[in-house]
Amino acid sequence: MKFSPLISELIAGLKCLPGVGQKSAQRMAFHLLERNREGALSLSQSLFNAMEHVKHCAKCRTFTESQLCDICADPIRGEHATMCVVESPQDMLAIEQTAEFKGRYFVLMGHLSPIDGIGPADIGMPELANELKKGAVEEVILATNPTVEGEATAHYIAELCKEHNVIASRIAHGVPFGGELEYIDGNTLTHAFAGRKAL
Amino acid sequence: MKFSPLISELIAGLKCLPGVGQKSAQRMAFHLLERNREGALSLSQSLFNAMEHVKHCAKCRTFTESQLCDICADPIRGEHATMCVVESPQDMLAIEQTAEFKGRYFVLMGHLSPIDGIGPADIGMPELANELKKGAVEEVILATNPTVEGEATAHYIAELCKEHNVIASRIAHGVPFGGELEYIDGNTLTHAFAGRKAL
Ligand SMILES: [Zn+2]
Ligand SMILES: [Zn+2]
Repeated sequence: MKFSPLISELIAGLKCLPGVGQKSAQRMAFHLLERNREGALSLSQSLFNAMEHVKHCAKCRTFTESQLCDICADPIRGEHATMCVVESPQDMLAIEQTAEFKGRYFVLMGHLSPIDGIGPADIGMPELANELKKGAVEEVILATNPTVEGEATAHYIAELCKEHNVIASRIAHGVPFGGELEYIDGNTLTHAFAGRKAL
Repeated sequence: MKFSPLISELIAGLKCLPGVGQKSAQRMAFHLLERNREGALSLSQSLFNAMEHVKHCAKCRTFTESQLCDICADPIRGEHATMCVVESPQDMLAIEQTAEFKGRYFVLMGHLSPIDGIGPADIGMPELANELKKGAVEEVILATNPTVEGEATAHYIAELCKEHNVIASRIAHGVPFGGELEYIDGNTLTHAFAGRKAL
């Protein structure tokens, strides 16, 4: 016995969400069918809209449906002399929530990982080089995750900065090695920013 | 700083899934945007189709997009003399997976819960009475969950069966008290069916 075709398809569809297996997907499907059809229809629409319209910011590469994200579109922050490089939009949000950093961002959307075939072009290095070439950036704060790949990526970008005579610094103490930036509390992140060291 | 409107709406939409909070919803949203836009679009479509077309089986009340579910539409099972009453379609699936029960079902889509305002009419009692009145059902196996509400519901239905001169039995040993039917292994369920007792 299986569920009806439309229910089976819904369960299969929900399993494309990270961390959702067969049992959770079933539970979600029946919860929506029984108790929240309106919410499910609204989710259906949100998924469609986001997948169709969300692209990358033309300047910092974060996700946005506009040409430029809010920060890049801001006349002060968008042309700020200090640029913070992060791996993901979630990391950018975590830093924004500390309200300590007032500069611009560059979002790698990943990190260097030769084993997975992810090279410099995949994390926007040509675009970053282009931005540094313009001369408006004076310091790049490397806020990649304190993992092996994050460190390697930071060093790669530090070299790129050197080529363009831009100071590169690395966020420092407070960030536990092997941790993920997204899950670190604001206070720790604030200290890591304050304690950054030139590379 | 917030995410762009479409991303914020997507995160809000994902939070209508049971067990999904802000952090999980963010993780899901970015996972889909970064790695599985096709899967997300397909989920969007599946959600829409299921919410628009899945109704209740006209006979057993389980979810289906057809007039009758597969089991009720089966000429032998649909008119079987033994009817198993369960709380949810998931419980029905759990029992089907033991492949021991060959009769028909009646799915309550819940249980009696006066405190939540859920009375007999909300769990299909008029429809069940109607079905028993037809005289084709000889035994009703009460497979509601072994919880306080599940037991109360079973006793309510046992009384209904008595009124219609239909044998009512309760699945018995093997099902731990306080457990949820959906999560019990097939072997235990098989024993519970075999050891049922007349009420
Ligand atoms: Zn931007
Ligand atoms: Zn049915």
